[in-house]
Amino acid sequence: MPIDPGAVGREGAPCTRSWDSTDALLYAVGVGAGLGAPTEELEFTTENSDGVVQRVLPTFAVLLSQAPTPSFGDVDRAMLVHAEQDLVLHRPVPVEGTVTTTARITGVHDKGSGALVSVEATAVLDGGAPLATNRSAVFIRGEGGFGGERGSTQTWTPPDRAPDHTVTYATRPEQALLYRLSGDRNPLHSDPAFAAKGGFDTPILHGLCTYGVTGRALLATVCGGDPDRLAAMSGRFSSTVLPGQTLTVEAWRDGGDVWFRTRLDDGTVVLDRGRASVTER
Amino acid sequence: MPIDPGAVGREGAPCTRSWDSTDALLYAVGVGAGLGAPTEELEFTTENSDGVVQRVLPTFAVLLSQAPTPSFGDVDRAMLVHAEQDLVLHRPVPVEGTVTTTARITGVHDKGSGALVSVEATAVLDGGAPLATNRSAVFIRGEGGFGGERGSTQTWTPPDRAPDHTVTYATRPEQALLYRLSGDRNPLHSDPAFAAKGGFDTPILHGLCTYGVTGRALLATVCGGDPDRLAAMSGRFSSTVLPGQTLTVEAWRDGGDVWFRTRLDDGTVVLDRGRASVTER
Repeated sequence: MPIDPGAVGREGAPCTRSWDSTDALLYAVGVGAGLGAPTEELEFTTENSDGVVQRVLPTFAVLLSQAPTPSFGDVDRAMLVHAEQDLVLHRPVPVEGTVTTTARITGVHDKGSGALVSVEATAVLDGGAPLATNRSAVFIRGEGGFGGERGSTQTWTPPDRAPDHTVTYATRPEQALLYRLSGDRNPLHSDPAFAAKGGFDTPILHGLCTYGVTGRALLATVCGGDPDRLAAMSGRFSSTVLPGQTLTVEAWRDGGDVWFRTRLDDGTVVLDRGRASVTER
Repeated sequence: MPIDPGAVGREGAPCTRSWDSTDALLYAVGVGAGLGAPTEELEFTTENSDGVVQRVLPTFAVLLSQAPTPSFGDVDRAMLVHAEQDLVLHRPVPVEGTVTTTARITGVHDKGSGALVSVEATAVLDGGAPLATNRSAVFIRGEGGFGGERGSTQTWTPPDRAPDHTVTYATRPEQALLYRLSGDRNPLHSDPAFAAKGGFDTPILHGLCTYGVTGRALLATVCGGDPDRLAAMSGRFSSTVLPGQTLTVEAWRDGGDVWFRTRLDDGTVVLDRGRASVTER
């Protein structure tokens, strides 16, 4: 069976996940914290530096709020890419903890060249407090044309001026080998043979790694370095990134509202239509 | 109490440690496998590449065969550096397993400017088969002059010719932030404030990271890429390495006997008097 439009509303099994300080540190280096400047993000990359209390990158909550996606048909995994990611943080991410998360399919849209499957999941901490809500969408090339609705497109209108902040971060050629150790072992990001089946010349970087690098840029700029201030962050993966490429994040801020996008050196936008919410302290 | 020469013969408590595939992958990227060339060492950096069976870098056994060192006095940890490392492999390192290891102090020598404490430990796999014997020594600056024996120095005479193999590997400025996640959280390698207490301008790379990078070079050359062929590897840490520096390994091979040393771009030898044993297949 190919894509299954009847999957909407389907719920997966609840998934319980625990994490600890080391998991948070591994995620941080996986999204490039400390890259090239190893003493600059010590609160995210170390747990025992003098006068530094370990904190957690807010985008780590995307991984914590993942849960097995219910079936949406029998599709070729090599044709599947992460298309959209929206994260709402209900509270700061603790250095260690346990959450239970249930994923629900909220949409199967027909985009013509492929299908867009949307999933929502909220991670609930032991004790019942919600930690984060994760809305994501995957695009499956070749699975469109089934006669479904196309879905809506939201407007994205940053302030009409040059970006308020521009930050450039490198990634490493080996970045995906490191990022994958935080959990996403899709061989599209590491195995040239598998990547070739998906039509890629080389393994590509995880979209969520680009998302995490971008989150670090927002943290350093519109959040004033305070991870507790990032309340939400969403964006659309618009082009592939190869491990080793350099990412430039442009951000506009108007009160608590943030617009951003991430591009490569040649101008290609790779994370588009970014929106974030920032709280005051 | 400062250094305690009476510690010789003291045995620590048995230490049981389990590891899995992810631990082996993390160690591999920690010692630079895939660095700059992410598809070249897939058997060590991935577990799911098409046609590739995961294998383990032999030097990972150094970590597996570590156990808490019995007390050898109350010394300043910031003045302690890893001085020597000798690893004997009794069998290939499995991708996952459990070992029990007991450490014993085998020497406390007086080197004048400091004390050299030697420790030996053998890791035994569940089932009773020995995996590896780990002999290491730490040097504690300022703890010499207690009137103890100086200890012997073995000769090191590689064949009188240019090295048979020369391999150059980069390290990353953030290498120690990654390597430390394999277990050695000594802040000397990550915290500038702690490193300053030890007299270093910046955090320094773990000696065992240099050792692991060197092991990869031996694997690629004298072992013909086969990790099961490395039977033993020893050397002396002769100078500090900063994360980001480039390491060049020179090796000579005469049958199963190997001599090697690792140096920086400026010629400074950082891992000296290296010896290895290689078996035929």
